[in-house]
Amino acid sequence: MEVYLDHAATTWCCESVKEIVVKTMVEDYGNPSSMHKKGVEAEGYVKRAKEIIARQLKAKEKEIYFTSGGTESNNLAILGTAMANKRNGKRIVTTAIEHAAVQEPVKRLEELGFETVILPVDSQGVVSMDALEEALNPETILVSVMYVNNETGSVQPVEQIAGILREKAPGALFHVDAIQAFGKYRIYPGRMGIDLMSVSGHKIHGPKGAGFLYVREQSRIQPQILGGGQQGGMRSGTDNVPGIAGLGAAVDEIYRDFDKKTKHMYQMKELLAYGLARMEGVLVNGMDVRLGAPHIVSASFTGIRSEVLLHALEDKGVYISAGSACSTHKRAGSSTLTAMGMKPKQRESTVRFSLCEDTSQEEIEYCLEILGEIVPVLKRYARR
Amino acid sequence: MEVYLDHAATTWCCESVKEIVVKTMVEDYGNPSSMHKKGVEAEGYVKRAKEIIARQLKAKEKEIYFTSGGTESNNLAILGTAMANKRNGKRIVTTAIEHAAVQEPVKRLEELGFETVILPVDSQGVVSMDALEEALNPETILVSVMYVNNETGSVQPVEQIAGILREKAPGALFHVDAIQAFGKYRIYPGRMGIDLMSVSGHKIHGPKGAGFLYVREQSRIQPQILGGGQQGGMRSGTDNVPGIAGLGAAVDEIYRDFDKKTKHMYQMKELLAYGLARMEGVLVNGMDVRLGAPHIVSASFTGIRSEVLLHALEDKGVYISAGSACSTHKRAGSSTLTAMGMKPKQRESTVRFSLCEDTSQEEIEYCLEILGEIVPVLKRYARR
Repeated sequence: MEVYLDHAATTWCCESVKEIVVKTMVEDYGNPSSMHKKGVEAEGYVKRAKEIIARQLKAKEKEIYFTSGGTESNNLAILGTAMANKRNGKRIVTTAIEHAAVQEPVKRLEELGFETVILPVDSQGVVSMDALEEALNPETILVSVMYVNNETGSVQPVEQIAGILREKAPGALFHVDAIQAFGKYRIYPGRMGIDLMSVSGHKIHGPKGAGFLYVREQSRIQPQILGGGQQGGMRSGTDNVPGIAGLGAAVDEIYRDFDKKTKHMYQMKELLAYGLARMEGVLVNGMDVRLGAPHIVSASFTGIRSEVLLHALEDKGVYISAGSACSTHKRAGSSTLTAMGMKPKQRESTVRFSLCEDTSQEEIEYCLEILGEIVPVLKRYARR
Repeated sequence: MEVYLDHAATTWCCESVKEIVVKTMVEDYGNPSSMHKKGVEAEGYVKRAKEIIARQLKAKEKEIYFTSGGTESNNLAILGTAMANKRNGKRIVTTAIEHAAVQEPVKRLEELGFETVILPVDSQGVVSMDALEEALNPETILVSVMYVNNETGSVQPVEQIAGILREKAPGALFHVDAIQAFGKYRIYPGRMGIDLMSVSGHKIHGPKGAGFLYVREQSRIQPQILGGGQQGGMRSGTDNVPGIAGLGAAVDEIYRDFDKKTKHMYQMKELLAYGLARMEGVLVNGMDVRLGAPHIVSASFTGIRSEVLLHALEDKGVYISAGSACSTHKRAGSSTLTAMGMKPKQRESTVRFSLCEDTSQEEIEYCLEILGEIVPVLKRYARR
């Protein structure tokens, strides 16, 4: 049996995505910038994707900018805001549990003379509101907070943060990295006080290499990729029509029967988390099952290194992640787990299980069964 | 009959590209950063694409960095070089006929205090070597010249430029925008003296949203999209496996039977260009047919506005371009044609026909036949 429980790293494209990608690669292959029928036809795909996304966000179509994915969206939001607003202030506020695609642009801004404040989180991975209030000042031009943490599934009180921000630093833009949240929550940036929001296609059964940045009307950000002036000059380059059309199809699909899907994921998550919690020496990390995101379970297996567990599970056809996929390139341990106050030994034995709406009871039970078999064996072989 | 003669704007994906894109979207959908089998499998696709491209360029695999396309490649090359080398000098040398994806990053550098020199071209669209020699000084950190011009098909003497550069400004990096050249010429950046080279997938029957930048070993450029550290930190973001695999398949395919394809394209180009030249009031622009690129024909139809001709041809199923697709967003006329000394009236009546290796004699003959019918009619309706 093959059980893929690494959906937060990436997942397969659904049928409707595949179909529209193939159609726009082979048949309706025009360049939206072309003036003839083939171009207009291609432009239609881009327009329809924008409509779907705007409707889902209760946003305006012109507030949606397509990018090559979540990382580019985060870079555009952060570098773009800083460069466009540096005359108003130099302070950037973010958290200790952001994805590298937020952390690294923020570091670059620091090198360029911006002042950055990194907010701490509690043991559940939730940002301190007191620290936020303290950090905000009239010099603050950007606050960047992720909606759902990719390693632990912890959820930030985005609306509360937006409220504090409006009060303490009304000039600042509020960026939300919603890459793990979009498709799992209904998000309405307008009414939630979000100015900029990053979304990735391949986390929601859409194409890799496609994502978008929501930019609230009148927010000033500087384009980062320059050229032919596509997308109103905000992001140049030939529109990736198959990627954009596929992203639109994925958004359409993921929010269909949304409540049913979410309910099912929470049931599966509970089954997994409670099963794990019952195992000796296993700690389930982060927020309570129903308070955290529906698709991510972080757990520490005392005395077993995460890579060892990962490969042992892999041998049985179960695919999980040690930390997050994106952090495997780094030697340093997870900064999220560290920020939550986890000791190195526990961090090194922490893995992530991540589900999708198709994850079945049978799959979760198989995973738990295999864990029940291999964990005692691995512990016996562990150093202490 | 439908005749697509706008391949320089974009073209369809070939069968092998479609197949590998579908396979990596639906079946082998892993994230190359994942440590388990699904990740390793996905990484294999990236590795194979890199091998194919490196072999074709006679380059090293580690000299290939995947991007979201030609525009991002150009931005990375230009902004990345400037930022990494600004302590060595501030001069950037480029030409008057570059694509907006080069022009615009250069303009931004100018705003940031870099000194830019724009080289003139002759009436054929070829850069002046005298002007180049004069422009180069020890302060020069970057020279950016396009290989094949997207509007006229004019070809620059890339090796000669590299030679002059090595002599007059040995510290400068030489960037070549090869987006219209790759797949039409055999290009070996190492022996040709190219340090950085931009390539796009969708011009060679590969996927949109995928391209690469060749970066010669030891060339210092600063990454522009930051995050998880993928691609050795040069370009973060989850690898677009379908896009990358598709790009690899496209490169493999486009250079198969290469000489035969090129010969065929020149024959078709000749048929078209000579057919056009025989029409009254039609001027074929740019270099001699056999000296210019095999796939682009620029022609001016005295007294007929390019959009009018474009739409009249469209009605008959023939798709061409007024200028280049990428410049249709701009109100200003083509800077390439202006730089070649073309008067406004001629510029406004200039269109581009662009072929691919599948363009048939029947298609060219149909195009000429339709032109023969509509051009006299359009002239009659023209203002003068």
